[in-house]
Amino acid sequence: MLITQGPLLEKIDLPSDLKKLKKEQLHQLSEEVRQYIIDMVSVHGGHFGASLGVVELTVALHYVFNTPDDQLVWDVGHQAYGHKILTGRKNKFETNRIYGGISGFPKRKESEYDAFGVGHSSTSISAALGMAMGSLHNGNTSRQHIAVIGDGALTAGLAFEGMNHAGSVKDANLLIILNDNCMAIDPNVGALKEYLTDITTSKTYNKVKDEVWNLLGKMSKFGKSAREIVAKVDAAMKSTLISQSNFFEALNLRYFGPIDGHDVDHLVDVLNDLKNIPGPKILHCLTVKGKGYGPAEEDQTKWHAPGLFDKVTGEIKKKNYTRPMPPKFQDVFGHTIVELAEKNKKIVGITPAMPSGSSLNIMMKAMPDRAFDVGIAEQHAVTLSAGMATQGLTVFCNIYSSFMQRAYDQVVHDVCLQYLPVIFCLDRAGFAGADGPTHHGAYDIAFMRCIPNMIIASPLDEEELRNLMFLAQSEDVQNGKQAFTIRYPRGEGVMPDWRRPFSKIEIGKGQKLKDGDDLAILSFGPIGNEVKKAIEKLEISMSVAHYDMRFAKPLDEEMLHEIFRKFDKVIVVEDGCIQGGVGSAVLEFMSENNYNASLKRLGIPDRVVEHGEQPQLWAECGFDANGIARAAERFFEIEAIK
Amino acid sequence: MLITQGPLLEKIDLPSDLKKLKKEQLHQLSEEVRQYIIDMVSVHGGHFGASLGVVELTVALHYVFNTPDDQLVWDVGHQAYGHKILTGRKNKFETNRIYGGISGFPKRKESEYDAFGVGHSSTSISAALGMAMGSLHNGNTSRQHIAVIGDGALTAGLAFEGMNHAGSVKDANLLIILNDNCMAIDPNVGALKEYLTDITTSKTYNKVKDEVWNLLGKMSKFGKSAREIVAKVDAAMKSTLISQSNFFEALNLRYFGPIDGHDVDHLVDVLNDLKNIPGPKILHCLTVKGKGYGPAEEDQTKWHAPGLFDKVTGEIKKKNYTRPMPPKFQDVFGHTIVELAEKNKKIVGITPAMPSGSSLNIMMKAMPDRAFDVGIAEQHAVTLSAGMATQGLTVFCNIYSSFMQRAYDQVVHDVCLQYLPVIFCLDRAGFAGADGPTHHGAYDIAFMRCIPNMIIASPLDEEELRNLMFLAQSEDVQNGKQAFTIRYPRGEGVMPDWRRPFSKIEIGKGQKLKDGDDLAILSFGPIGNEVKKAIEKLEISMSVAHYDMRFAKPLDEEMLHEIFRKFDKVIVVEDGCIQGGVGSAVLEFMSENNYNASLKRLGIPDRVVEHGEQPQLWAECGFDANGIARAAERFFEIEAIK
Repeated sequence: MLITQGPLLEKIDLPSDLKKLKKEQLHQLSEEVRQYIIDMVSVHGGHFGASLGVVELTVALHYVFNTPDDQLVWDVGHQAYGHKILTGRKNKFETNRIYGGISGFPKRKESEYDAFGVGHSSTSISAALGMAMGSLHNGNTSRQHIAVIGDGALTAGLAFEGMNHAGSVKDANLLIILNDNCMAIDPNVGALKEYLTDITTSKTYNKVKDEVWNLLGKMSKFGKSAREIVAKVDAAMKSTLISQSNFFEALNLRYFGPIDGHDVDHLVDVLNDLKNIPGPKILHCLTVKGKGYGPAEEDQTKWHAPGLFDKVTGEIKKKNYTRPMPPKFQDVFGHTIVELAEKNKKIVGITPAMPSGSSLNIMMKAMPDRAFDVGIAEQHAVTLSAGMATQGLTVFCNIYSSFMQRAYDQVVHDVCLQYLPVIFCLDRAGFAGADGPTHHGAYDIAFMRCIPNMIIASPLDEEELRNLMFLAQSEDVQNGKQAFTIRYPRGEGVMPDWRRPFSKIEIGKGQKLKDGDDLAILSFGPIGNEVKKAIEKLEISMSVAHYDMRFAKPLDEEMLHEIFRKFDKVIVVEDGCIQGGVGSAVLEFMSENNYNASLKRLGIPDRVVEHGEQPQLWAECGFDANGIARAAERFFEIEAIK
Repeated sequence: MLITQGPLLEKIDLPSDLKKLKKEQLHQLSEEVRQYIIDMVSVHGGHFGASLGVVELTVALHYVFNTPDDQLVWDVGHQAYGHKILTGRKNKFETNRIYGGISGFPKRKESEYDAFGVGHSSTSISAALGMAMGSLHNGNTSRQHIAVIGDGALTAGLAFEGMNHAGSVKDANLLIILNDNCMAIDPNVGALKEYLTDITTSKTYNKVKDEVWNLLGKMSKFGKSAREIVAKVDAAMKSTLISQSNFFEALNLRYFGPIDGHDVDHLVDVLNDLKNIPGPKILHCLTVKGKGYGPAEEDQTKWHAPGLFDKVTGEIKKKNYTRPMPPKFQDVFGHTIVELAEKNKKIVGITPAMPSGSSLNIMMKAMPDRAFDVGIAEQHAVTLSAGMATQGLTVFCNIYSSFMQRAYDQVVHDVCLQYLPVIFCLDRAGFAGADGPTHHGAYDIAFMRCIPNMIIASPLDEEELRNLMFLAQSEDVQNGKQAFTIRYPRGEGVMPDWRRPFSKIEIGKGQKLKDGDDLAILSFGPIGNEVKKAIEKLEISMSVAHYDMRFAKPLDEEMLHEIFRKFDKVIVVEDGCIQGGVGSAVLEFMSENNYNASLKRLGIPDRVVEHGEQPQLWAECGFDANGIARAAERFFEIEAIK
């Protein structure tokens, strides 16, 4: 389908083109950008609601500020489609999130307009403050530094740490724009959210707001001399806003707003004024996630990243399957935790802002008193889980693998050093797919494996995920005082008929899936299904044994002894980084037990792997079925040469 | 020296004994506890100022609340000496922080009164909230959950995440006590600190406070029926405090205070009242760090943990040395960064709340515009550094190894995935000594080694630390787009004459320190000095080569080839966890290059290692000089048996 551009957008490649427009044309341009996003995402997929919500803000920011010299940081970054379209990537936009194409997030390597790479939330204030302090250090007092952050991202501790510091750097050219749409991916939670709502609806605040904006309205006319007016604004604010002791002003940030984030004219005026107000400040913009596309405004969670859809009817396209399909691992988690919790009253579930992404929303609906979304707050999620565990609760804390990086100290310090049996379910382990390197769950095996009192498992398939969850909540584990990590990937497994009765797995026990004579392949987790395919390919030329390790820690030493007594050629396959991963754990075992087999580790190499579909990335890194088969063949070639 | 106990303290072993006292006696008991802490710490060492500041609070809490059933969580934990003295550990207190003795921090294994293990700051709110939610889940609505947190610890994001969630759990029995002494270890920084000072000195607040406290004063007389008064207090607060929109009330926490944290009578009344007010609430107590000991009140940073001292004169005892002593590694860092920064204008320094602990205070004094304490905010420190690096600055970000666990995602997501050459100096790498497992820098090699675009080095001695810093800030590294981690331990090195001219080290180049024929020992970092001693012991029986690896990543492959071509017996020694550490990196190299030497890895084992002096812990784990020598000898015994 050919996607056409509106007449204004057609002429814009870079912000310098945008700046040639008259202010009156910005409304039309915004509509054209919005339409372009709708057209593009409906056909090519991607994040949706967030970018629609900031179209006017994007246009106004590039109209008012001097990007790329001024530094514009988009928190989380899935709101940056309009930004990408207006900064040289309009005609590449159909490659968005596709293997080899542009990234779905801002990325420094991709464009000088992408001042900071963002994928995880809540980094923008610290990053932009660092830039502002850097500019001060470099003697550049005119450069502006803007962080656009959502109210969801504001709940993370990092954002607070950034604000607390920013408020004490009085000469930093820092503008924080709070994009307040009451949403993370799921509705935002926590006390601050309620507070923002209070501000927005409070009569006092609106009165104060009017006073300030009247003053600012006058300022616009003064142009450059606006700085002189600041003193007057300050006085007005001191007597009104500051005496209200707003949350943000408690942190020494001048607070402006709330204003309508979809009124592009007003945004331009306000941003022009704020450009002339020195020091750290925050502008509170009210926006609607999915703005301008009815169905997306109605159901914002569903339309966060809807996949392909018919833009006219709003119907989200589902793939048609002729036979039953395997479920997503996350849904196996979601249904299984409810099933377990019905029998085991000690079980509770925790997610930091990923109810729909983790499928804990199934439990939140079925058992609202026992499943909790704590907002974007991974550190808190883990320490809270530890606190609950001290009271005898069996806590399933579900966090994406790459987000667990943010709660690492809490896993060490609050859980494992205290011998608390918290269960961590790491979704999106391995390659995350189109979200790319910020979201790849590449490092968890290595960073979890070095912590004492930690069990690490990964299921080959849906049934094993159920059985590992069954094991983790059993008394064997809960009385054993070790934490229990279960990692599994994004997307579907392999087992349409997945809802099978629980059966007991022992801690640290793997299984032999297939016997063989020439070579043993050990796999950890669902990547084992690629091994199965590889073995089919290899069947004619060699006899390959396949072992499903199930546990990266503790290792199944009995099974490993069996393997290394029999085989002198072994391959270990994991969907994780090869330094320090499962393969290295096997090397450690070999070294400790004086085995000398040739061992090839397949996994994620020591470099940044970009975005793409999982099978594309497995292939790139040589551990899809073909890559595994090649590695097996190479073993024998090398041997032949020797 | 025999330390005597005051007449009241003498009769108290447990809080049940304390509860037998009359309220009028609590002032005297507080003085006796204070005196006991002064006596103990002056002779046996330990943390000092923090515990002196909370003596009255400690007495009041155990008098009012029903510990250990009520859950009392001491944030950071070095304020808990009074707590330990009053909860069964009075007579063991002289073993505080000594190998085999009691821990300097609360610890669940040690006492049922230690509801949560704490060593890193800012965990208490999340932990106590988890406990409160756990009690709700268990149907226990009477149990109280108290978090005592300092204003310094409040700046960390985790504390904010906890408050934001707590404010939305309206039925949690949670009392947060803000112990506000304007200090972390160094003076507290950031906007919130200024805000707390404003509250404390503001007339409006004091007026409001008086109104509230008048009401509460009346409540005390009502006893159990106090709950009925809550509605009235609420009304008063709504019309006064809440309309002021206090920072904490913005987070839905009922705010009480500020009150004098040294008035034990008043504290008892207030805590009794608060016990009857349901829901999450915060009591703001003003305390003085070092209270009751003049010199400690005067210079609070120096007296945070002063070592041994003469309690009468206030003279801190220094060891007398007959010859020049080697400096602490931290001081080599502190002086060297200034020396480098004088020549390289791009250099800046960052520390999260450890100016004196990292010795960055030397640069903060010499170059106040170029060295920054960002408060207890490790995540922010790293992302801020990344932001600065985007502006071309050369950032030395100094964080203790175990605290770096709290900024792990920021290292991955904001620095390494973006190819930014931030320099991380990890102080307190390896065993931290008396602070124990929460502070051991045990995992950094493993958790850093798996990240792409990361160089990891450790110096054998002071001169090498200087040269590694020299290398890290050089154009070779700064243009290379890799982060650079330098890890070094707590305490002294080995080189009195340490201030030598810089010389150039190449990235990834180790050095052979000594030739040999029978066995090669590879070491990473200052633990190499134990290897030197081991080799002296072994000299008679075998010929041992010694290699200083310097880099855990990238490995010196040329050197490793040389080693494995020559030796079939190799030992790798590191002061870090053996899973995934440097030894494992060497195993990976061997596997990739088909070397079959017998390799023994010495390092921190896969279990929680408790506190003690570094040499004691090295010995326990078998990698002090004796342990290394034994490992070498065992190699040949095993070989002989074969």
